[in-house]
Amino acid sequence: MTTKTGVAIVGASGYAARELIGILLGHPHVRITAATSRHDETPRLDLLHPSLGRRIDLTCEVFDADRIAEKASFALLALPHTASMAIVPALRRRGVRVIDLSADYRLSDPQVYADWYSHAHTDPEGLRAAVYGLPELFRERIPPVDLVANPGCYTSASILALAPLVAQDLVERTSIIIDAKSGVSGAGRSPKLTYHFPECNESLAAYSVGQHRHTPEIDQALTEVGGGPRDPVEVIFTPHLVPMDRGIFATIYARPKGSAVEHDLLALYRSYYASSPFVRVVGHLPATKDSAFTNFCDITVRVVRGRIVVLACLDNLIKGAAGVAVQNLNLMMGCPEETALF
Amino acid sequence: MTTKTGVAIVGASGYAARELIGILLGHPHVRITAATSRHDETPRLDLLHPSLGRRIDLTCEVFDADRIAEKASFALLALPHTASMAIVPALRRRGVRVIDLSADYRLSDPQVYADWYSHAHTDPEGLRAAVYGLPELFRERIPPVDLVANPGCYTSASILALAPLVAQDLVERTSIIIDAKSGVSGAGRSPKLTYHFPECNESLAAYSVGQHRHTPEIDQALTEVGGGPRDPVEVIFTPHLVPMDRGIFATIYARPKGSAVEHDLLALYRSYYASSPFVRVVGHLPATKDSAFTNFCDITVRVVRGRIVVLACLDNLIKGAAGVAVQNLNLMMGCPEETALF
Amino acid sequence: MTTKTGVAIVGASGYAARELIGILLGHPHVRITAATSRHDETPRLDLLHPSLGRRIDLTCEVFDADRIAEKASFALLALPHTASMAIVPALRRRGVRVIDLSADYRLSDPQVYADWYSHAHTDPEGLRAAVYGLPELFRERIPPVDLVANPGCYTSASILALAPLVAQDLVERTSIIIDAKSGVSGAGRSPKLTYHFPECNESLAAYSVGQHRHTPEIDQALTEVGGGPRDPVEVIFTPHLVPMDRGIFATIYARPKGSAVEHDLLALYRSYYASSPFVRVVGHLPATKDSAFTNFCDITVRVVRGRIVVLACLDNLIKGAAGVAVQNLNLMMGCPEETALF
Amino acid sequence: MTTKTGVAIVGASGYAARELIGILLGHPHVRITAATSRHDETPRLDLLHPSLGRRIDLTCEVFDADRIAEKASFALLALPHTASMAIVPALRRRGVRVIDLSADYRLSDPQVYADWYSHAHTDPEGLRAAVYGLPELFRERIPPVDLVANPGCYTSASILALAPLVAQDLVERTSIIIDAKSGVSGAGRSPKLTYHFPECNESLAAYSVGQHRHTPEIDQALTEVGGGPRDPVEVIFTPHLVPMDRGIFATIYARPKGSAVEHDLLALYRSYYASSPFVRVVGHLPATKDSAFTNFCDITVRVVRGRIVVLACLDNLIKGAAGVAVQNLNLMMGCPEETALF
Repeated sequence: MTTKTGVAIVGASGYAARELIGILLGHPHVRITAATSRHDETPRLDLLHPSLGRRIDLTCEVFDADRIAEKASFALLALPHTASMAIVPALRRRGVRVIDLSADYRLSDPQVYADWYSHAHTDPEGLRAAVYGLPELFRERIPPVDLVANPGCYTSASILALAPLVAQDLVERTSIIIDAKSGVSGAGRSPKLTYHFPECNESLAAYSVGQHRHTPEIDQALTEVGGGPRDPVEVIFTPHLVPMDRGIFATIYARPKGSAVEHDLLALYRSYYASSPFVRVVGHLPATKDSAFTNFCDITVRVVRGRIVVLACLDNLIKGAAGVAVQNLNLMMGCPEETALF
Repeated sequence: MTTKTGVAIVGASGYAARELIGILLGHPHVRITAATSRHDETPRLDLLHPSLGRRIDLTCEVFDADRIAEKASFALLALPHTASMAIVPALRRRGVRVIDLSADYRLSDPQVYADWYSHAHTDPEGLRAAVYGLPELFRERIPPVDLVANPGCYTSASILALAPLVAQDLVERTSIIIDAKSGVSGAGRSPKLTYHFPECNESLAAYSVGQHRHTPEIDQALTEVGGGPRDPVEVIFTPHLVPMDRGIFATIYARPKGSAVEHDLLALYRSYYASSPFVRVVGHLPATKDSAFTNFCDITVRVVRGRIVVLACLDNLIKGAAGVAVQNLNLMMGCPEETALF
Repeated sequence: MTTKTGVAIVGASGYAARELIGILLGHPHVRITAATSRHDETPRLDLLHPSLGRRIDLTCEVFDADRIAEKASFALLALPHTASMAIVPALRRRGVRVIDLSADYRLSDPQVYADWYSHAHTDPEGLRAAVYGLPELFRERIPPVDLVANPGCYTSASILALAPLVAQDLVERTSIIIDAKSGVSGAGRSPKLTYHFPECNESLAAYSVGQHRHTPEIDQALTEVGGGPRDPVEVIFTPHLVPMDRGIFATIYARPKGSAVEHDLLALYRSYYASSPFVRVVGHLPATKDSAFTNFCDITVRVVRGRIVVLACLDNLIKGAAGVAVQNLNLMMGCPEETALF
Repeated sequence: MTTKTGVAIVGASGYAARELIGILLGHPHVRITAATSRHDETPRLDLLHPSLGRRIDLTCEVFDADRIAEKASFALLALPHTASMAIVPALRRRGVRVIDLSADYRLSDPQVYADWYSHAHTDPEGLRAAVYGLPELFRERIPPVDLVANPGCYTSASILALAPLVAQDLVERTSIIIDAKSGVSGAGRSPKLTYHFPECNESLAAYSVGQHRHTPEIDQALTEVGGGPRDPVEVIFTPHLVPMDRGIFATIYARPKGSAVEHDLLALYRSYYASSPFVRVVGHLPATKDSAFTNFCDITVRVVRGRIVVLACLDNLIKGAAGVAVQNLNLMMGCPEETALF
């Protein structure tokens, strides 16, 4: 009988943390041994998340790196940006391997981070050590490291949808438009007027037009996929808020360099993702509901009046956050990537 | 050509105020001459409520009783409870007639107010002068007064649904159960976790079970309809939060004193409300959507296994707040009750 | 290494079937070996349910009792009423054990079935053999039988909420009022105007007032819990349609025989369900979202003005259909009741 | 005292018809004198639309051109495509002026109609006589004619959002991408699986990618605005279904011919629509809810990485259907364009 690996959930009060806990409760090789909450109160997990009642018996503690290191080999950080980089060095020094769900370690250039997040990066060493945790593109980099930057929800959908085109150099790199739509859970659990039910229910709106922080993350990953900074990818990214709980839908437009044939593009996508268990390249037009509550990203491609249109969707809390974190955890632990996921 | 009557909206930032403004913009005999906001900022109304853009050109001011009295004959107060009674005396002293949408003047006994609102009543004189503004029951009392307490949304639905039965003494007065359901706009416009979209969307829950403040208001009005305190009505009232913007649905159960016949009850209701233009006694089972964005209250009656079941619905922001306020305003101004309403 | 038990899903196109398949894909001792569809077409399961893409590779077949018997030890029937009883005898004759999710075997008296379903019962033998599959009340009856009638969604919530009170004879049996609210998936997957998005979205309505077919099922089970037909339970049952996908909320009112104390009632409920892993007796007021996508039924009790108010909720597709079916399957297979469920 | 103009609603059972009736009930110079229904039944209008109860007392009749001509000067046709052109000639011959809300008279080239609607056009004479009823662009053409083709909902939003850019020749005409999102009422009132609540609720999906019938309508109007067919506009149009009742949101991307400055573009839009009472050019990012239940189209412009991004929204049933029809009716009657609208 093997011992289970101890995992700590740091920042347990939000939606991504709740999903993480739910998934890990079904993981055969993991035990959640600690959970922390930013608040002074140290509530039981099932008070924070009544849906977890009778499923887990654990009381949140105030974060303490020594105690986490005693109890857990891995820390999954579901914290707001800047909060993660304040504690990652202490965890790594104590030998705790970290998967950070915030944006703190996603952008390799600290200046880009400072520009988009209005905050200097305080852990440049961590930034150099971190790997961008999108397994479908960077699977082989993840097992050995002790710090994985879990990608953003919009970014995962966008990058997975575009990687085959950019990798094969099939599209003009400054022609790409990503019109993205997200359910409201993507905005987190802190009440604000924008997310007050009678404000956003029965309404759709764009927000942060031209200014959303997932933009440089998409640029960076696709630029790397495309061969590096000599021919950078620069996307136009427009997020929208949709009156539903969860789901990301990305409608992506790109101008092909040559002629584009739908059938060939679908074949390319199928081949590109043949060994990725959580990308479903489909012939039909997917709906966010098909992948809701799953770790799948559904993708299809069309050609319209000479333009390539890629449609991709995923569950922002699972494939866009907690699910891919568990994919990363599995890779770091040496388990099959699919363990505890579907 | 007659001058229009000046009306001030005191507390213009919430949902009921927005509805009031929308209705009054279509009123042939009224002009909105002032609006106030609790906040230090004095924003344009169309910044508070983008839906009013190009419909009204007015900037909120900080409340000042003298200025209101200069500009307006009527003040419609869309304030939280306790805030109304802090300013009503000043307005009345200056000759401004008041329709108060808060709960401050609804309960005639200040002790009952103190018990349910945890706050002593500071304007007992106003309380004595105030009339309960449910036109369908107390139409003739409203024209002469200078202070009308606009009823609550749950209460209007509940009282209208029960008044014919209680007036005719057809039901046992402590047998009444009101199972009520409300859209989220009933909770107001202040963000709280409970009303955060991903919390209340796709969910239904009861709240304030046995403790909701509309309970004594329903008891009081029905007790009066039923002949007074010697035989008081005491209802069991359970509110629920429904994932929709607007609408109240009250499902009401009462034990008949004698035998109950559906057909006769429908006839009684039709007769009772024959001269009330905004009560629709219907044969079918109504849905909240039928009366949404209107000032109608839809009611029907059934007999199930010997129990009377009354079903009533209305729009909580219109018939449950802004619309009935305009009914009251019309009555106070001497206009036809229906003016500007449907 | 043990062989997995073959299970057939008969009637695979609806919502309950989709949930069943999803749960059974995670069951360590079961393999889905066949699926049938009423339609002439025999589509792949993942065309019927795109969410199952890449999770199961199975093509629906037209129902044939011999073929089912070859492939499966158990048949789970997700058919409309009357369709089940047309095929259950053939399956049982061939040794296939059946869990029927329709209403066909729930009412032990064929006359009551005929009265409420307007159709004579054509399998009285099956009716006598069938056991009502509510494990929390009838757990010990289920393992040996070859035909289990899976309870209805409203009924499970209602019966679980009332059983402790009725078993202890604490309430007047004709005083019980069940005001129930359901998400729209409870109405099945066939498009009708009532369930057309722009009709039922942003609306709440009662339906089938006094006429819903779950009424006799609730009466029957509670009457048995209460000691039998000499002192029958007769409930007033009012269902409502709520604009959300899934969830049942039952608000139940009953007049106590003696005095009722909240604290004691909660203790009674906790004790009554101590050995039932899927009933969570909670102190707070539950929301349907807490139990959505789980097999839990959440229950709490209040006393309001001398009346007992029980609040219960569950996911109509899981605990109200597919989840309890798997509970029953586990009991019939001799597995732990919780297998594959949470 | 002037006589009111008689108006017939042909095809009264759908959502656009219901909105039309609601608006016209508040019109000071119009009386609805007839309504027809496709069905054999001739129901009362308030049975088709319970929300109209106590507001109108009219029974639908089977369509008969002679009877319509007796009763009404105008016929507003809320019919499916092909049904309109089957009756328009008979109405016009009898002197009835027609506003057609279907697509039958929108495309001036019958071959384009045949290509996109898979049906030959059977009224070429009507097609030549018809005027495209988008008042903001073609206001002066509408008063004299007897046949107005009311524009589609997506098209109105798209054309209004693009007309200033195209009229001023500021963008490359084949670079335009329209990513549009619609509430479900846009799909009409006929139940289908796609619009079944549990299918489309909590989901977002693209549909008819590259094939939506509003595409040629947008091309045609913008090509005309842009100076004619020598330099045609050809848009990429992608519609999405959003889980809300009403609202269109169009996010539009275009490559400027020269450099684009946000401030100048906003000034251009404000100037272009200065005399159009129902276009609100706003500085903020609009939400569909701001214009829901109104006849306004809200538009703003941004420049993102050198690309022009226009954001436009409107209520598909009002500004996208019934409201613009009443604008057209007002123009045809010689009333102020705003009559009965806001």
